[in-house]
Amino acid sequence: MDSTHAVSEIVETEGHLIDSQLMTGIFDAVVRHGASFDVVDFTIGRTNDDFSRLLMRITAPGSAVMHALLEELLTLGCRTKAEVDAALQPSPIDGCAPEDFYSTSNHRTWVRHAGHWLEVERQRMDAAIVIQNSRATCRKLRDLRAGDQVVCSLDGIRVVPEFRERDRHGFAFMTGGVSSERHVETSVERIADMIRDVKRSGGRTAFVVGPVVVHTGAADYFCELLRRGYVDVLLAGNALAVHDIEGALYGTSLGVSLRTGAPVEGGHRHHMRAINAIRRAGGIRAAVASGLLRSGIMYECVQHDVLFVLAGSIRDDGPLPDTIMDLFVAQDRYAEALAGVGIAVVLSTMLHGIGVGNMLPSWVKVVCVDINPSVVTKLVDRGSAQTMGLVTDTGLFVHQLAKKLV
Amino acid sequence: MDSTHAVSEIVETEGHLIDSQLMTGIFDAVVRHGASFDVVDFTIGRTNDDFSRLLMRITAPGSAVMHALLEELLTLGCRTKAEVDAALQPSPIDGCAPEDFYSTSNHRTWVRHAGHWLEVERQRMDAAIVIQNSRATCRKLRDLRAGDQVVCSLDGIRVVPEFRERDRHGFAFMTGGVSSERHVETSVERIADMIRDVKRSGGRTAFVVGPVVVHTGAADYFCELLRRGYVDVLLAGNALAVHDIEGALYGTSLGVSLRTGAPVEGGHRHHMRAINAIRRAGGIRAAVASGLLRSGIMYECVQHDVLFVLAGSIRDDGPLPDTIMDLFVAQDRYAEALAGVGIAVVLSTMLHGIGVGNMLPSWVKVVCVDINPSVVTKLVDRGSAQTMGLVTDTGLFVHQLAKKLV
Amino acid sequence: MDSTHAVSEIVETEGHLIDSQLMTGIFDAVVRHGASFDVVDFTIGRTNDDFSRLLMRITAPGSAVMHALLEELLTLGCRTKAEVDAALQPSPIDGCAPEDFYSTSNHRTWVRHAGHWLEVERQRMDAAIVIQNSRATCRKLRDLRAGDQVVCSLDGIRVVPEFRERDRHGFAFMTGGVSSERHVETSVERIADMIRDVKRSGGRTAFVVGPVVVHTGAADYFCELLRRGYVDVLLAGNALAVHDIEGALYGTSLGVSLRTGAPVEGGHRHHMRAINAIRRAGGIRAAVASGLLRSGIMYECVQHDVLFVLAGSIRDDGPLPDTIMDLFVAQDRYAEALAGVGIAVVLSTMLHGIGVGNMLPSWVKVVCVDINPSVVTKLVDRGSAQTMGLVTDTGLFVHQLAKKLV
Amino acid sequence: MDSTHAVSEIVETEGHLIDSQLMTGIFDAVVRHGASFDVVDFTIGRTNDDFSRLLMRITAPGSAVMHALLEELLTLGCRTKAEVDAALQPSPIDGCAPEDFYSTSNHRTWVRHAGHWLEVERQRMDAAIVIQNSRATCRKLRDLRAGDQVVCSLDGIRVVPEFRERDRHGFAFMTGGVSSERHVETSVERIADMIRDVKRSGGRTAFVVGPVVVHTGAADYFCELLRRGYVDVLLAGNALAVHDIEGALYGTSLGVSLRTGAPVEGGHRHHMRAINAIRRAGGIRAAVASGLLRSGIMYECVQHDVLFVLAGSIRDDGPLPDTIMDLFVAQDRYAEALAGVGIAVVLSTMLHGIGVGNMLPSWVKVVCVDINPSVVTKLVDRGSAQTMGLVTDTGLFVHQLAKKLV
Repeated sequence: MDSTHAVSEIVETEGHLIDSQLMTGIFDAVVRHGASFDVVDFTIGRTNDDFSRLLMRITAPGSAVMHALLEELLTLGCRTKAEVDAALQPSPIDGCAPEDFYSTSNHRTWVRHAGHWLEVERQRMDAAIVIQNSRATCRKLRDLRAGDQVVCSLDGIRVVPEFRERDRHGFAFMTGGVSSERHVETSVERIADMIRDVKRSGGRTAFVVGPVVVHTGAADYFCELLRRGYVDVLLAGNALAVHDIEGALYGTSLGVSLRTGAPVEGGHRHHMRAINAIRRAGGIRAAVASGLLRSGIMYECVQHDVLFVLAGSIRDDGPLPDTIMDLFVAQDRYAEALAGVGIAVVLSTMLHGIGVGNMLPSWVKVVCVDINPSVVTKLVDRGSAQTMGLVTDTGLFVHQLAKKLV
Repeated sequence: MDSTHAVSEIVETEGHLIDSQLMTGIFDAVVRHGASFDVVDFTIGRTNDDFSRLLMRITAPGSAVMHALLEELLTLGCRTKAEVDAALQPSPIDGCAPEDFYSTSNHRTWVRHAGHWLEVERQRMDAAIVIQNSRATCRKLRDLRAGDQVVCSLDGIRVVPEFRERDRHGFAFMTGGVSSERHVETSVERIADMIRDVKRSGGRTAFVVGPVVVHTGAADYFCELLRRGYVDVLLAGNALAVHDIEGALYGTSLGVSLRTGAPVEGGHRHHMRAINAIRRAGGIRAAVASGLLRSGIMYECVQHDVLFVLAGSIRDDGPLPDTIMDLFVAQDRYAEALAGVGIAVVLSTMLHGIGVGNMLPSWVKVVCVDINPSVVTKLVDRGSAQTMGLVTDTGLFVHQLAKKLV
Repeated sequence: MDSTHAVSEIVETEGHLIDSQLMTGIFDAVVRHGASFDVVDFTIGRTNDDFSRLLMRITAPGSAVMHALLEELLTLGCRTKAEVDAALQPSPIDGCAPEDFYSTSNHRTWVRHAGHWLEVERQRMDAAIVIQNSRATCRKLRDLRAGDQVVCSLDGIRVVPEFRERDRHGFAFMTGGVSSERHVETSVERIADMIRDVKRSGGRTAFVVGPVVVHTGAADYFCELLRRGYVDVLLAGNALAVHDIEGALYGTSLGVSLRTGAPVEGGHRHHMRAINAIRRAGGIRAAVASGLLRSGIMYECVQHDVLFVLAGSIRDDGPLPDTIMDLFVAQDRYAEALAGVGIAVVLSTMLHGIGVGNMLPSWVKVVCVDINPSVVTKLVDRGSAQTMGLVTDTGLFVHQLAKKLV
Repeated sequence: MDSTHAVSEIVETEGHLIDSQLMTGIFDAVVRHGASFDVVDFTIGRTNDDFSRLLMRITAPGSAVMHALLEELLTLGCRTKAEVDAALQPSPIDGCAPEDFYSTSNHRTWVRHAGHWLEVERQRMDAAIVIQNSRATCRKLRDLRAGDQVVCSLDGIRVVPEFRERDRHGFAFMTGGVSSERHVETSVERIADMIRDVKRSGGRTAFVVGPVVVHTGAADYFCELLRRGYVDVLLAGNALAVHDIEGALYGTSLGVSLRTGAPVEGGHRHHMRAINAIRRAGGIRAAVASGLLRSGIMYECVQHDVLFVLAGSIRDDGPLPDTIMDLFVAQDRYAEALAGVGIAVVLSTMLHGIGVGNMLPSWVKVVCVDINPSVVTKLVDRGSAQTMGLVTDTGLFVHQLAKKLV
């Protein structure tokens, strides 16, 4: 099946190929695979608004290389001339795809089925595409059932990468590089504008929040965002909620006074007692209802009907009854909460930030704030047109954001 | 119940109080709580081997402050003169402790019951102590059952903090500070010595490993450690195993060639196909048995009967069938695997490293290696006498360690 | 001269030996040198305000080891019982000390000369002590002249390390550790209090400032501090002044708009033209006088008579005529500017921060702010009782500090 | 002089415009300046080896914007159609350029003079171009003399940016991103290949080295590189030489044993005595000649006639007599040493690394190694096609490099 003769293929694509550096990516991919290209036709967008169009012949040293190259080019928006239906194969057993299944990117994808192009629903990364009742849907491997019709190989698939938007809030100029030497307050203003835009257009916002927001004393400012309706979804882990509740019940976070910043006493006492108290109350909502919990981030979430999902991790103490320790459930609940979200702001949590990044399609903007440039780089590297990184103090960032928004 | 009259208490302690900076910690705690101390008697260890003994009167502005202070001093090894039994209260409902339960540190602890001092078993942090059949055992909140007799308040409890060992392998001089300007090869030699010592004395070693070990090309060296029997327990997450297996099946890790370091093709293809292949095979052991998986870290674990536990996280793709997505189970399996371990080496994983740190008693040495000083600082801060941090390239570290050990 | 017989010596010291961890340091030093100690007498400070007193016999395996150990113990505040004058030897040639010269620490030091104890003037690190006209003064190696009477060996020298102050503004609790998870606004408040205290008591403040203050858009806030008299001395390099002046003349910093944060045009144009314009004007003061320079940090320094010193570096473009490229002169001018300073705040400049740290005696408090924990660690490691490190966004820090102070 | 009418201009360029992302840069620049473009003609390179050619009309809202835009486009390789001589103006006074002088980039530049295109000599960044005797030369502002004929405005200037080389040693694929999760040993192999290539073709290598190379115990490996002739130029500061010499004379670096990594005794003693000893000997060469200095990096430099230049900084102790504290001289000596260098390897020194980066033309490859990603990012950001960054442990890197090369 694997020819070692040179094989050729014509591929085409169009869009903001130069601005979005797709052309560079396409040529790089060809060279990297040991293949060569021959541009048959290229029409450049004459102005900033026009699309460019590329038609080229690629020649690879064998069919296996060609297949691998085409797979990569597909994600960069290229398609072969042939208009054929996608190949379908049934899942062999529950929780498994056929060997040659097409693994999705997070870009908008169409699949040709019965002569029609279907837009893929629930677009996300690293999924299989199942065709059922003339609808194409992303499905995780573990959610596949034996016999599901899964899109395989590369035929009949089209991917439309996001193009870099150059004008709206200057987002384009803020993406890509990661530096702590930026003009932070200007960046905060733009992020505030983006959040306002999302809200104005009826969209929802998600905040993915690490416990540093509590440690650094920014919980009060974050509560202000919650009260004013700027947070529709709060995604976090056990630690955020525990530290927040410890602060609400005892005024400390891991035993450090939230008011003075000085250690108050053995941290373990408050930390574990806060967990025990909520466990006894039967959970966060019950603790608010009973009057035990009267302030803080989790309290405001309950009071203002903000959807929150707490996903567990191996390092969790307790945990709180609200923390979901079954990760299959946690991933599903995160994904449901993110449906229809227009912007996700990740505050100092690499773990949950990457989790959320895996679930979002490429057209949802992500803002990632962390004082550690490695964390920002890691999140931005997953999708540079999508993610804006800001290396700054998360506590002071939340303070500034609340000031700009409120 | 809460007096605002000044109250006094006599406390005493002994040990390497000055070398281990316990005295500084004790005095700091008193001042921080707004209390005062009056040293009644202090006998200093005349030589490096002698213990020091401290007897002091502390005066606090009220009984609540005194209680909190005594709780902190307890963890620093102090005890009150009174010889009384520990107070027991029953757990009110399943999964909850009485409100005033004593939350454990990771130091060796004794509890006085029926006039006898019982050493607490399964010592770990953030647990409750249950007395049953004249045995005292650490139990996590969620494992408590209604009616369990739980140690409450502070009476009848003694804690013995680890003292800094000053001579063995110079461990003391390598703990504490975190710097990337150390003489790395010397540190590696000492770590190798410590591992050899543990093995020689019949102890077990645990390695807690992040996927960077694969990305940086150190898997071959780590396999050598596995083959030579230097790894008894491997604790990791889904990502390590997936990247390792991707490397074994396709020679790539996230689509990057492990041989040349250059991207080979769209990473998603190999990554997800590796997962799918193992899912189809029925798991890692089955994949080794069937001949599908023939090299790499997971292969060597299976071949050499190294106990491995993979704990899931919210960011996991797939996951592999071997990855435990129920975190209650994952935490229990980690804790079981760590029983009797003499040294734990954490390689570039903050998440699993903290998880393991929570489970280990303070007398098990921990070595934490990461290129990011923030990660090392965070792990070392949890127990500075216990943990040695090394800021270096993890890949090159594993290479050096294998060279010294093999 | 170098005996290999065991030798003994009695040393004594007093002070807050336990709180300041001097005892730990002393015992560590003895063990590290392969010597042993035998505590003859130890009187502990009974309360937080009392001094402790230590008298011990140390035994070393030879006189060379003893000499090295005593030298280290001297810096930790220990002295031998013998009351003899310091040994003096003449400098052999200009710019050199005698081989056995005593190299200073930054702690307060006394030298015994002609039966009297002289307090050493111009205390700083890494200097020689010259006795002239019954005064003892620190002098850098290169400032020694042939024939200068230089203190040698260890006799007749007493060093008084700073003790940790535990109460004032909680400085003690903020020193030592380096973490980005602190409650930043609380720390800012305390720093503001310290600055106010210094001003109130007639002291002077020095700010050591890197160009990040301009890049991050904090120049306006820093100007406010200058206008309100909170900055007595500004120590910086060429880059701070150039970026500031570029901002004042063109509204950009390295070609990035200070208002919008977006790149405006090729940065080199503005950057080099700003330098050229000031060179042509004859310097910063002349540019202010002529009306060319009308705003910014350097402008406010001139307008409010703030002493500024710009020290050159190998990476400097231009430089500005005000930048001192002869480092002998620059070091002297820095040191003169620092005389009598009560607090030094280092904002995002490791190079100039270390330079300043080398010049300050240990009783001047240093605050070091940087977003990079490695920089803060490096500065704090030079003197942990003296330096408080804060890992945060420098731009937002200056904003907060101006808010608290103004 | 400053029109606010829309003005248009035709510009053209050719080269590997897409691979090198020059097209993206050009379009971005136009949009960023508030101008617009209209592509008149674009011929794409049909294969990987062919050049592309772009002809476009740009329209700006006024002549000032157009001027600024053209200046930026010039650096991206664009030229206007008009073939006119460069405008010359005399320097008004010593050390200053005319106001409208052209400030150079580090790319290869030609200037049209008397109808001929002259290639600019001594190409470097941030310089003025002087025409003298029909030769065009880069000159720093401070080296200009009154009356020098300086190239002004933008006419008659052509810049040829470096194109990304895609094949040689895969350098292209290693540039740009900064990550600590790379396959380090593969990168080391490529760097070794590049160094061998430079040597084979008769080129010279420069190493820019920070003191971490000594602290981390890599001095022995670096000495091996010196002995084998892989280092032609060593550029460093005072600290590298002092720590190295301290190691050679006393076996310590800042008082830490280079053999065991443990502190040996008060660091100041050895550190300052090493400086004093070399000062007394009259410098490094004299110390080698007299037999005082018998090993280490500086010793090998002297023994193997490796050119070394030590540039001073504000933080320097001593300094050594060889350290150049007049930075005008130091910059000139660095620049002379770099003439004809084919590759520069920067090891853990941001200060000297940036200094060297400022002096090198864009066609000299730079490798930057540091454990701190911020340092690598900062150096790579200065010229991404030129600089390859590697985030790893510098000590272990030097070990690996010596192993591959020797």
